[in-house]
Amino acid sequence: MEILITNDDGIYSEGIFALYDSLRKAGNVTVVAPDTQRSAVGHAITLTDPLRVTEARRRGKFFGYATSGTPADCVKLAIRALMKKKPDLVFSGINLGANMGYNVLYSGTVSGATEGALFGIPSIAVSLDTFIKPDFRCAAAFAVKLASSAARNRLPAGTLLNVNIPAVPAGRIKGVSVTRQSRTLFSDRFDKRTDPHGQTYYWLTGSLNQKDASPDSDLTAVSRNRISVTPLQFDLTDYKFVTELENWKF
Amino acid sequence: MEILITNDDGIYSEGIFALYDSLRKAGNVTVVAPDTQRSAVGHAITLTDPLRVTEARRRGKFFGYATSGTPADCVKLAIRALMKKKPDLVFSGINLGANMGYNVLYSGTVSGATEGALFGIPSIAVSLDTFIKPDFRCAAAFAVKLASSAARNRLPAGTLLNVNIPAVPAGRIKGVSVTRQSRTLFSDRFDKRTDPHGQTYYWLTGSLNQKDASPDSDLTAVSRNRISVTPLQFDLTDYKFVTELENWKF
Repeated sequence: MEILITNDDGIYSEGIFALYDSLRKAGNVTVVAPDTQRSAVGHAITLTDPLRVTEARRRGKFFGYATSGTPADCVKLAIRALMKKKPDLVFSGINLGANMGYNVLYSGTVSGATEGALFGIPSIAVSLDTFIKPDFRCAAAFAVKLASSAARNRLPAGTLLNVNIPAVPAGRIKGVSVTRQSRTLFSDRFDKRTDPHGQTYYWLTGSLNQKDASPDSDLTAVSRNRISVTPLQFDLTDYKFVTELENWKF
Repeated sequence: MEILITNDDGIYSEGIFALYDSLRKAGNVTVVAPDTQRSAVGHAITLTDPLRVTEARRRGKFFGYATSGTPADCVKLAIRALMKKKPDLVFSGINLGANMGYNVLYSGTVSGATEGALFGIPSIAVSLDTFIKPDFRCAAAFAVKLASSAARNRLPAGTLLNVNIPAVPAGRIKGVSVTRQSRTLFSDRFDKRTDPHGQTYYWLTGSLNQKDASPDSDLTAVSRNRISVTPLQFDLTDYKFVTELENWKF
């Protein structure tokens, strides 16, 4: 099995190392990832600049291709220019921090997997629900299980899996829940500050504004120490509103 | 009516000027847009850098706020830091080039409107289907009609409108179609080149790989010289696949 790994925390992050070490048990792994952190880049791609590719090393050995692009760029570059064979699976992660609710719209991790699904390849985004002292072992082990599940079963063309792992030791994981994207928003605000040269700047901050505690949401599953697996698709059409919209007088 | 305008082509682009001149007939307009081109940034937001805001002038007069951020950043900044009142409507555009099919995933224009919808504000993305010698008049006039339609009718919370305008004179527009996002993909490829210093770089290119000519698609409408209005939403859950996924052995 040919497996492509990307992420948005950058090719030298602990999360991608853990995923790589684990997925090597499942197949032949190629890593193509951003040369630096690209969090919250959403589904950005690079059109107006050239992309650079360098070889990244780990413990003195070739590890993968570091690119100047976004996770979506990395997947395109891997498939169209760097890999000899089209991958059978695309993994993105393991991300530092969960990607649940409307945050999936901003997530570079999810967009790496979305790009794989746009190529018709079974694709999986994996995120760990912590920013502090991450232990990726449980997430990495689950990724191997998922690789084998995805090979055995069939993901419909255009569907990807968004996986969020609770940050607790393996023994405290209560199971796996198939969930839906929760309706949970951040309440944004901006810190308005002055730089050393007297100029104003703004810095985005904010906290999670929990709104969706229903039993089938991704957030609920993770808060109950369950692994959340959400199937996502990328036809954004609001079919329920089409008929009403047809009655608008334009 | 308080109207916020953003775009992804940058605050000094002809498309945003045309939209501004037109929407001033419908309400009090505030412009907050990127200080330079941010095409294909998707739903990127800026977390690891501060955001700068400068006053942009046009014909010697204050025109709006130019920011160092993405369209989504601009909408957040406008609502949380720059505008005194929350806007009643958010417009994004007029974009140079259509945003149809899976391209909506990459579109900074659409993400500006998505961000408005995330705030619960009726939001509309407007794009013109050409990159060459654009005439924005028809698109700008339709935006005013839409502003009044959106005020009269009600967009459900979490739904935005993605509008694509054929690049033909007003007299040749055949009408308005409510459409769905087409399943149309680009066939990407990379030009592999060598820079003047002997280093390799890659540049993304490709052409539209038309796959979805069904009568209700956005692409079909525009190809028939009809204005395409697609309702979009941002719950990406693939509800149809949930039950099958629950049968996977994880």
